[in-house]
Amino acid sequence: MPDNDVFKTLNQPRPWSGYNAFHSDPLLGDLTRNLARPLRDEFDTIGRYVTSPEAQELAQMANTSLPQLKTHGPAGERLDTVAFHPAWHALLRRSMSSGLHSSLWEPPRDADSKSKAHKLRAVRLFLTAQLECGHLEPLSSTSASLAVLAATPQLRSEWAPKILSRKYDSTNRPQAQKTAATIGLAITEKQAGSDMRGLTTKAARVSEGVYRLTGHKWFVSAPMSDAFIMLADVDGKPGCFLVPRLLDEGRTNALRYQRLKDKLGLRSNAAAEIEFSDAFGFLLGAPDGGLRTILDMLTLMRLDSAVMASGLMRAALAEATHAARGRSVQGHALVGRPLMMRVLADLALDVAAAGALSFRLAESFDRARDSAEEAAYARVMTPVTKYWTTKIAPAVVAEAMEVMGGNGFIEDRPITRHYRDAPGLAMHDGAGNMMALDLRRVVEHGSDLFEAVFQVIARDLGASGAKIVELLRAAMALCKSHESAARIFIEQLALAAGAAELYRLGAGRIADAFLETRLAAGWRSTYGMLDTRFDASYVVELLFPEMD
Amino acid sequence: MPDNDVFKTLNQPRPWSGYNAFHSDPLLGDLTRNLARPLRDEFDTIGRYVTSPEAQELAQMANTSLPQLKTHGPAGERLDTVAFHPAWHALLRRSMSSGLHSSLWEPPRDADSKSKAHKLRAVRLFLTAQLECGHLEPLSSTSASLAVLAATPQLRSEWAPKILSRKYDSTNRPQAQKTAATIGLAITEKQAGSDMRGLTTKAARVSEGVYRLTGHKWFVSAPMSDAFIMLADVDGKPGCFLVPRLLDEGRTNALRYQRLKDKLGLRSNAAAEIEFSDAFGFLLGAPDGGLRTILDMLTLMRLDSAVMASGLMRAALAEATHAARGRSVQGHALVGRPLMMRVLADLALDVAAAGALSFRLAESFDRARDSAEEAAYARVMTPVTKYWTTKIAPAVVAEAMEVMGGNGFIEDRPITRHYRDAPGLAMHDGAGNMMALDLRRVVEHGSDLFEAVFQVIARDLGASGAKIVELLRAAMALCKSHESAARIFIEQLALAAGAAELYRLGAGRIADAFLETRLAAGWRSTYGMLDTRFDASYVVELLFPEMD
Repeated sequence: MPDNDVFKTLNQPRPWSGYNAFHSDPLLGDLTRNLARPLRDEFDTIGRYVTSPEAQELAQMANTSLPQLKTHGPAGERLDTVAFHPAWHALLRRSMSSGLHSSLWEPPRDADSKSKAHKLRAVRLFLTAQLECGHLEPLSSTSASLAVLAATPQLRSEWAPKILSRKYDSTNRPQAQKTAATIGLAITEKQAGSDMRGLTTKAARVSEGVYRLTGHKWFVSAPMSDAFIMLADVDGKPGCFLVPRLLDEGRTNALRYQRLKDKLGLRSNAAAEIEFSDAFGFLLGAPDGGLRTILDMLTLMRLDSAVMASGLMRAALAEATHAARGRSVQGHALVGRPLMMRVLADLALDVAAAGALSFRLAESFDRARDSAEEAAYARVMTPVTKYWTTKIAPAVVAEAMEVMGGNGFIEDRPITRHYRDAPGLAMHDGAGNMMALDLRRVVEHGSDLFEAVFQVIARDLGASGAKIVELLRAAMALCKSHESAARIFIEQLALAAGAAELYRLGAGRIADAFLETRLAAGWRSTYGMLDTRFDASYVVELLFPEMD
Repeated sequence: MPDNDVFKTLNQPRPWSGYNAFHSDPLLGDLTRNLARPLRDEFDTIGRYVTSPEAQELAQMANTSLPQLKTHGPAGERLDTVAFHPAWHALLRRSMSSGLHSSLWEPPRDADSKSKAHKLRAVRLFLTAQLECGHLEPLSSTSASLAVLAATPQLRSEWAPKILSRKYDSTNRPQAQKTAATIGLAITEKQAGSDMRGLTTKAARVSEGVYRLTGHKWFVSAPMSDAFIMLADVDGKPGCFLVPRLLDEGRTNALRYQRLKDKLGLRSNAAAEIEFSDAFGFLLGAPDGGLRTILDMLTLMRLDSAVMASGLMRAALAEATHAARGRSVQGHALVGRPLMMRVLADLALDVAAAGALSFRLAESFDRARDSAEEAAYARVMTPVTKYWTTKIAPAVVAEAMEVMGGNGFIEDRPITRHYRDAPGLAMHDGAGNMMALDLRRVVEHGSDLFEAVFQVIARDLGASGAKIVELLRAAMALCKSHESAARIFIEQLALAAGAAELYRLGAGRIADAFLETRLAAGWRSTYGMLDTRFDASYVVELLFPEMD
């Protein structure tokens, strides 16, 4: 066939890689402006890395060459291991070297690292989520596991040095022989998902703090972790345990891997169904205090899920905006068409608010110790932020895909992976209704926490603050009297707090548009509804500036 | 390991199969009540089949054992064929035997089949979409192709007997030697997606109606079709062509298959990139009338996409509701928890409105010839219905998946497939912005069509009709003056017409709840916002009754 123009690839955007995810994000610029230079340099390096062709290729390989379960070895012996593609290990190695699993718990290297540990980690996580979310799951659970290990100081001192190591070690050996250890989470059982009181796994006491566990877990995320945090029934009440995968002698801890889950998304990371009989487990906290203990871990992971969902949405919309800039229709750049610009702008408002809310939540975690107001914010806004940022993600990514036309439906580019990953972040560590009901529990306990949060929101909203807090009070009263109204309140609170934080960050015109559409406009079920009095082009060019 | 209770599968819903998708749908009951018994019996058979374990297994196999491209044979000869799993052929054979590709064009067997051809087909399509959408793509394009073949009577008389045959023939032979033929659609080129004026494929005239085509197509859906409808440039203007895959002598028509698309969803059906040099094409209609000609085909396919999206959403929500009934949390059925019920009800309202709108559009197609009002409805509401039903599908399915907890993220059940398929239906045959701009074109031409549609809507809405039409007029004016407001108008029109049709069907309380939330309530970005004054349990039990 002639090498004719008719076969050429024309009018398609260049590959979406090689820009800088940190520099191209004005919100991150605002959030990090006052940080020390070495920190900003580090973010710059991550920002450049995550969109490099090399990193993008690793992300794609890790999600197409999927983990394989090896139940048995050549002689029929049990193995119960999962083989991962080298790309998975490369992603983990890199992200562990940047301390995503450890930075919260390391001795601070400077004043910022001490006072802003959650915020700094959130920036790293947000950037890395724009590359690949699957490999962040074990890092999220590993980081959060230190909150529960604290419940039994002896276990903490045994495991923490390995958990805090930044030198990834993928060998299949007991932790004592490794340079680093990762920790997985295994809560769900077949008969009990979010219902942690419905456990059938039993723990029988062997000696002080040592138990033997018999039962199963239905979703074991990151099954090659060195140990798992699990709940098991101790005399009728749930206790929390650390269950190593291998025992010190190198024998497996009676964990039998049944199969890997065929997941819709987050596919680079495996999830296994396991059964075990008389597996050793080490008690964390009081024998009947498992729910309280594990909640500390889940709270940290909920912040992570919000940050990851916000990063994932930003990556999807950045890719779509890039595509709309690189393609012309009837002689005009697609991005310049008024309706397309309006859709992008409407999406960009939600993406900006999600990021702002997530970073604000991280900041409240940093300041909770010194400020009652911030502690209240952290408690109230964890379920709110996790709910809203993860819940809007599927529709945001679907709309972003459509900007790319049919190309947005093909798995050659990262955006379809974001679409598949998104619902997983919403289901993780407490799905939507759990978040709404968690918020309602705070309401029911007649807590003053909301007064503090409303005050923060009203202050940052400025002139419109009082009126909006009035709306929130009405929604809260409704939520208190009707469980079924819990989602109405949680969403209103997310929208109000999102707008407030955008104002605080100085993004006044963005905040105006977000506030006036989301809190003062009519119902909508699709994007592109941003009222014409707002300048869509300003919103898009500000939040997603064109990069060379 | 002991066969102990702790390993048993408890408190999980039984598989979602073996009920009747027709009988369990009250909307379909209302729509078909006055039809002749044989028709209702046929729907009953389809309704039973689509949820049978056998059919569900075919659907799953066709989407996991994916089509394979065979570019070359053993001796290095070009093959340019695609091998499909037998499950694909089984699905097509069954759906062709029920006439999904042909019923619109067959001699009517009774009065209903004559006057309600589109509506009856929509019922079959809606039910079958609940099983599997991928295999419906070639049937949709095959049925719609007869609208364009009509433009050249001689081609129509040659091809129609094969296209209308209900005996599926998967052999790789020229149509003259086959019992049946299917027709694919190939519009998109690399440099031009929706922009049909940007074609690079050229057609050179050989003789009256016969051309040779040189160029490429970037998305060829159903690449084993017997012929494709394509656009190609004839002296600077797009012409529409029928391009057979094999020539009469059995030689391939110079179509070189480059690769198959790795699609996110609708994976059972292949899509290929092809190149061709001097392929034979037969002109349909005037040489410069390609856009007009192909629009007749796209209009029919847009109705199909709306019906399919509505069926897909109903299947997802039915599966989720079933799961919520079959699972208990802390001793109570999940479905009975107030917040869960509220989420299901809020979803059910949109799913019901989507179905109602789609069937109403089909009815207008049936009646357009005899009624100016119905012709206006068909013209105006095709983009509106296609836009809204397909656009809400990803968020609806994502929320339905979450009802199932972590199980909703695993590809063992149909619901994740619906999530993958959903964005494809929105991108098909004209994505969201194309629909909104198509609607705006009607507005701009100062058409009286809207008056007719507003009259229909106002009549069916009853008391609130006048006020709502006033809102629609304001949105229309905004859309006229600002392209960027086109989505505001298209969504308002969808919501108003959806409510109107629910009233007309006699679903007054459902319509009330839909209308008062969607057209009189505040912004929302997640589900579960249905106001507490509406009875969520009534909505769910009415629209998704429990089946034994």
